[in-house]
Amino acid sequence: MTSVINVNLPELSYEIAISPSSLDQLGQQMASLKLGKKVLLVSNPTIFKHFGERAITSLRDATRTLSSANASLTSAGFEVASCTLPPGERYKTLNSIQKLYDIALENRLERSSTMVALGGGVIGDMTGFAAATWLRGINVIQVPTTLLAMVDSAIGGKTGVNHPHGKNLIGAFHQPRLVLIDPEVLKTLPMREFRAGMAEVIKYGVIWDAELFAQLEASKRLDQLRYVKPELIQAILVRSCQAKADVVSKDEKEGGLRAILNYGHTIGHAVESLTGYRLVNHGEAVAIGMVAAGQIAVELGMWQKEDTERQNALIQKAGLPTQLPTGVDIEAIIDALQLDKKVKAGKVRFVLPTEIGVVTVTDEVPSDIIRQVLRGM
Amino acid sequence: MTSVINVNLPELSYEIAISPSSLDQLGQQMASLKLGKKVLLVSNPTIFKHFGERAITSLRDATRTLSSANASLTSAGFEVASCTLPPGERYKTLNSIQKLYDIALENRLERSSTMVALGGGVIGDMTGFAAATWLRGINVIQVPTTLLAMVDSAIGGKTGVNHPHGKNLIGAFHQPRLVLIDPEVLKTLPMREFRAGMAEVIKYGVIWDAELFAQLEASKRLDQLRYVKPELIQAILVRSCQAKADVVSKDEKEGGLRAILNYGHTIGHAVESLTGYRLVNHGEAVAIGMVAAGQIAVELGMWQKEDTERQNALIQKAGLPTQLPTGVDIEAIIDALQLDKKVKAGKVRFVLPTEIGVVTVTDEVPSDIIRQVLRGM
Repeated sequence: MTSVINVNLPELSYEIAISPSSLDQLGQQMASLKLGKKVLLVSNPTIFKHFGERAITSLRDATRTLSSANASLTSAGFEVASCTLPPGERYKTLNSIQKLYDIALENRLERSSTMVALGGGVIGDMTGFAAATWLRGINVIQVPTTLLAMVDSAIGGKTGVNHPHGKNLIGAFHQPRLVLIDPEVLKTLPMREFRAGMAEVIKYGVIWDAELFAQLEASKRLDQLRYVKPELIQAILVRSCQAKADVVSKDEKEGGLRAILNYGHTIGHAVESLTGYRLVNHGEAVAIGMVAAGQIAVELGMWQKEDTERQNALIQKAGLPTQLPTGVDIEAIIDALQLDKKVKAGKVRFVLPTEIGVVTVTDEVPSDIIRQVLRGM
Repeated sequence: MTSVINVNLPELSYEIAISPSSLDQLGQQMASLKLGKKVLLVSNPTIFKHFGERAITSLRDATRTLSSANASLTSAGFEVASCTLPPGERYKTLNSIQKLYDIALENRLERSSTMVALGGGVIGDMTGFAAATWLRGINVIQVPTTLLAMVDSAIGGKTGVNHPHGKNLIGAFHQPRLVLIDPEVLKTLPMREFRAGMAEVIKYGVIWDAELFAQLEASKRLDQLRYVKPELIQAILVRSCQAKADVVSKDEKEGGLRAILNYGHTIGHAVESLTGYRLVNHGEAVAIGMVAAGQIAVELGMWQKEDTERQNALIQKAGLPTQLPTGVDIEAIIDALQLDKKVKAGKVRFVLPTEIGVVTVTDEVPSDIIRQVLRGM
């Protein structure tokens, strides 16, 4: 079960390689990319404990093709330094990036050097941003270890950190040279994080891939990894990554189509921000946002009620919330929408479904409809 | 005397407009670029006092073409906020960038918004980096007010800030949408800064444009603006910007040719860094670096002694130093070279002239030659 998906971009194309046990192939997979000798592996303490040594061994043992005119030359493996950053969205700050800069300096990373992000979305976003901005850009490889990072954040080149007043307000587009996905690492993923990843998987079903949606509907359970067949996990990863790669290849820097990936994220980001990035995690917030967006689409006469219900049934089957957390003020959500990166000339942009697998983008949703839908949740 | 130079890049092309009094045309020049309504003008206190109001008035009074499908629609001028950052290389830090982020947030800048950098290289680099990383990239316009920024840093998309241990180690490539150069603003430029800019002008003569070199040789004085004819100032700006645009267009992200722009910068950066960015300014450091690089080329038998002397005579005519500042340790310079962004596999890269207007890049300069040349200065 090895699948390779190509992300084709004007300046740089890269592969998403999905295969069980591929973590042990990391060094060999990187060897053909003609990278410099130095690698900085960035992780968090828990992930590093589980997988750090395997990744480092693979990197050190790789037979590397030299980035020389004479490509037949090979060299001993990579020279690896490693570091860990504290886990959690609240550490996704410029302070953590400054630590990475200091470590990059200590290890004298050069322009041909590579940072490897081994972890979830927070590690991937921060490592990507540090790589984007150290020496005006060095290589980055994404090795996502959460379902959410595998199907979403590790692909597409979005990197960044949070501003005290808003998520991901600081960042850059910086494409990885390779995304390596080993589904087996999901075995150590906490249940709640697995479910959070399923929110993005369901999203791809709604916005892009009706066949994926049908496969998810056919599975008896989606709420824990051990109840989902390995073949379905592989299919979920491949179809989700393919969906993301398709969209990103057509619109690298969010000029148009890429906006559809934000389905469920408009209200989702507001909910996440208002609950301090703790009470509700990103996937849960997206689940809530999809329920809201689906209902808005129904209210506007764009989507059928039965399809919203099918979507919401999947969300529930994945053990995800479909209601606003108690205590979140609806007017505060409406205000927070104004801070969204996707606001244009003060108008909030919504991605709304029209059928399973198809969405449209609009900035013409009246505030009253948003209010009414949120009150109903 | 209006000259327009095109910088042609795969993703985005832009104009460098050089014309006396063009500061008052800023708004009108920007109006055709289909930018969003919001502008944040970034400057330093002195520059803002001299030129801030003129720039703001021009922006507010512009008749803007709406970024709509219907391009014939026009709108009242830009909505302008402004801020100043403290002057000087020592404030070119992530802390200053964080201030810009806060101001961007306060003013709710959107992805279609624009930062305008009105100032020298420090303001241009910081505003460019903040624009590169706010919301993963918003528009930036460069309005350089020093000779150095006009002929060098405002063009080509290099942005960044300093790390406590090295200059410009943190940054991004982010091309401006327009570079607007008004030679008349040079009238308020301190003499020492004018001379610093002349160092880069002389550099273009040596690395790219023998005709510019000859024009500089033909001028009686180059050490103060008032002794240089306005026609020569215009020619200096046009030919220097053209040289930079030529090189950048051929190599946007420093893969090869662009390296030649670093002539004089290898040792220059080390000298600048070792003197704490205060005793010696960037242009003076480049002048010293060019003298050193010229002599290294002579020692290696690559360049004629007479040509080095012609170069050094121009440097002296511009009132620039040709000797190492006292107290700078030569071994410290050798060590500092290892930290240069241009180091590859531990080898220091030098740009060395072979004739006036032509240079070559090499990483094969023995440390002993560097030592010997520095001892002779």
